[in-house]
Amino acid sequence: MDQYQQVTETTPTVESANPYGPNPADFLSNVKEFQLIDSTLREGEQFANAFFDREKKIEIAKALDDFGVDYIELTSPVASEQSLEDCKAICNLGLKAKILTHIRCHMDDARVAVETGVDGVDVVIGTSKFLRQYSHGKDMNYIAKSAVEVIEFVKSKGIEIRFSSEDSFRSDLVDLLNIYKTVDKIGVNRVGIADTVGCANPRQVYELIRTLKSVVSCDIECHFHNDTGCAIANAYTALEGGAKLIDVSVLGIGERNGITPLGGLMARMIVAAPDYVKSKYKLHKIRDIENLVAEAVEVNIPFNNPITGFCAFTHKAGIHAKAILANPSTYEILDPHDFGMKRYIHFANRLTGWNAIKSRVDQLNLNLTDDQVKEVTAKIKKLGDVRPLNIDDVDSIIKDFHQDLATPILKGKDDQADKEEPLNIDEPARKKSKLSESI
Amino acid sequence: MDQYQQVTETTPTVESANPYGPNPADFLSNVKEFQLIDSTLREGEQFANAFFDREKKIEIAKALDDFGVDYIELTSPVASEQSLEDCKAICNLGLKAKILTHIRCHMDDARVAVETGVDGVDVVIGTSKFLRQYSHGKDMNYIAKSAVEVIEFVKSKGIEIRFSSEDSFRSDLVDLLNIYKTVDKIGVNRVGIADTVGCANPRQVYELIRTLKSVVSCDIECHFHNDTGCAIANAYTALEGGAKLIDVSVLGIGERNGITPLGGLMARMIVAAPDYVKSKYKLHKIRDIENLVAEAVEVNIPFNNPITGFCAFTHKAGIHAKAILANPSTYEILDPHDFGMKRYIHFANRLTGWNAIKSRVDQLNLNLTDDQVKEVTAKIKKLGDVRPLNIDDVDSIIKDFHQDLATPILKGKDDQADKEEPLNIDEPARKKSKLSESI
Repeated sequence: MDQYQQVTETTPTVESANPYGPNPADFLSNVKEFQLIDSTLREGEQFANAFFDREKKIEIAKALDDFGVDYIELTSPVASEQSLEDCKAICNLGLKAKILTHIRCHMDDARVAVETGVDGVDVVIGTSKFLRQYSHGKDMNYIAKSAVEVIEFVKSKGIEIRFSSEDSFRSDLVDLLNIYKTVDKIGVNRVGIADTVGCANPRQVYELIRTLKSVVSCDIECHFHNDTGCAIANAYTALEGGAKLIDVSVLGIGERNGITPLGGLMARMIVAAPDYVKSKYKLHKIRDIENLVAEAVEVNIPFNNPITGFCAFTHKAGIHAKAILANPSTYEILDPHDFGMKRYIHFANRLTGWNAIKSRVDQLNLNLTDDQVKEVTAKIKKLGDVRPLNIDDVDSIIKDFHQDLATPILKGKDDQADKEEPLNIDEPARKKSKLSESI
Repeated sequence: MDQYQQVTETTPTVESANPYGPNPADFLSNVKEFQLIDSTLREGEQFANAFFDREKKIEIAKALDDFGVDYIELTSPVASEQSLEDCKAICNLGLKAKILTHIRCHMDDARVAVETGVDGVDVVIGTSKFLRQYSHGKDMNYIAKSAVEVIEFVKSKGIEIRFSSEDSFRSDLVDLLNIYKTVDKIGVNRVGIADTVGCANPRQVYELIRTLKSVVSCDIECHFHNDTGCAIANAYTALEGGAKLIDVSVLGIGERNGITPLGGLMARMIVAAPDYVKSKYKLHKIRDIENLVAEAVEVNIPFNNPITGFCAFTHKAGIHAKAILANPSTYEILDPHDFGMKRYIHFANRLTGWNAIKSRVDQLNLNLTDDQVKEVTAKIKKLGDVRPLNIDDVDSIIKDFHQDLATPILKGKDDQADKEEPLNIDEPARKKSKLSESI
């Protein structure tokens, strides 16, 4: 019998226990080793409200570097004189992140770019019939010739070079693969796929990336606009298909309604690859970076922003509140603590439940039986039907109810209880690896 | 030779010419025949800021009905007394949309629901191990038994019934398929898949829906939370896989940062199925409906909201502006006119290009050669390097430049030119079917 190895049931690994982890069938997946190219200072400069002076650009670049982005992309040095000077200044900061600048596929631009001190140059040219006809008016042969000339020139200077098509999803597939194959052969560092008009869908992205991955050996970078609200999902699916780098900007600012947002992508990625994301990026800095950029471009953080939107971790319905109080993982995979945020139970409303109210009763240090809590909850829901409630309303109802009881047992009022804020059930001792418990 | 049929090249259909149209390989796709269940008055009521009185609920329900949603879902009538009365009141409005209410999988709730006058009841129960342990504490046998009882009761009243699991993506697949098969057999109208914690990704959604589609014969409804920014993409991918109905809410309001937003999903769907979407839904009403709800729940429309965000149709970089002026389809698949919106070229900034400035020169009815426009553009970019520009700045520079020319040719100033607003290149005569021209 000893010629047979004993077969034992293997303990499932943490990864296989994460229902949101990378799909094992995606053997080219980079979900657990992606890189970020932050383009707040390039794409973001194309946002309607953006005007960054040098000081602000440097402040943003330093914040992004501290957060841990791999690359910082800057506006073309030929866009204006100031753009050139700012580019040089940021290259001189000695940041850990590599500095890129983004230029047209033209030697005039390339010659200026390589003298700025950047670590790499991102070259782009429109390849869709639309852009070829209405933008630069060149055919694919011309594009290939320019690309080779620019790439070889940049490479000769010893810096990184990326070649990207523009409007890739409306470009002819054969044209695309041809040009990417050509530039890959001459040693480009990355090729880029861009959904310039923001209309690609996830499975379409996956198909194109998987196909491209079979044609080139270099890394693939992706750039997704958000016109149809799919920029985060497309980025994730691109990584599943084998793309390695994702272009992001803070709050997604860019042309029109922008691109894949840094914060939103972090929410997406921490669910799939928690260890990688938490070890590589300073997630608790997201809020500060978003506030910095929001202030600079004079917008408010959207109410529904992933992670930092005011209600991202607020639970309201009674049935949700009950379960969250028993175990936060029931209705929450994102752990607010990972982002330096807190969880709130919104109990001052007519959809509240007795579990949430019981929690508040405990926080107020009052003693009520479950039946009594249910009774006072009914009173609260009744008033909630008539008008919006605030915390003081609820506390008053609870306290009045408590006083009216025949034998009130006051354990001693806790002056620390915060009456102005929703119930905060933040638990410092919460278990670390929530995802691994998920199944 | 006449035994052979002549082979002719067929003209590609409009559909195959749309690079963003449904994937022909998705033979179960409902991308071109989906339905909307608006849950602003149920899921939306669970949004932190929501308090809708009866008048507001009726106003919202009427607006949604006018827009063309297929179903309107209301808060459970057992949530509070007012919820019950409001539910009855909305059922009595005689709207075209079918009215649903959303209850726990329990006879106590079902008995109340069927007496309200609703057209259908949406039943939900948590099936993940997490919810079974920390929420209702029941096992799958109990769930199946309750489900059958509630479904048969609701059906006996002659109204529609949907059975949904909660937290479907963290539920055991075999458990899920078992319960869905059971309820399908006894004639449920729809089964629902819910990404309650907002962490599913598009290809995961596709797999689950395709699998479920092979198990049940009834329609599939999907409900996606937006914690990781994928709610629109997941909805689209679910339709590709064979789901038929999508839960939405205005601006996506709901628990935490909400669910698939109505407006964002319309942006996604019009790209894929323009004829269906335009013929079925009053897209130009989206802005009004969003404003109505935003005001009611006291939030601002996010700056980057699809369609109605202030910059959704604003083009800034010179290279973009040039192409947009030549043909809007170059950088824009969504046609702002479809939504009653307008397109703007943002030309008062240092990233501007001479094509955008030339357009402004024409609008000001001044005569400059291309070389002169390039010269004045350089002046504008120079000032744009120093400080943010407004339209008046640009107009002043252009006019000063024009006056300084040796022989100015003033064609007559057009007093109608709007100096306060960005350049609006809205063209009423723009071709209707842009998508069909896309390749």
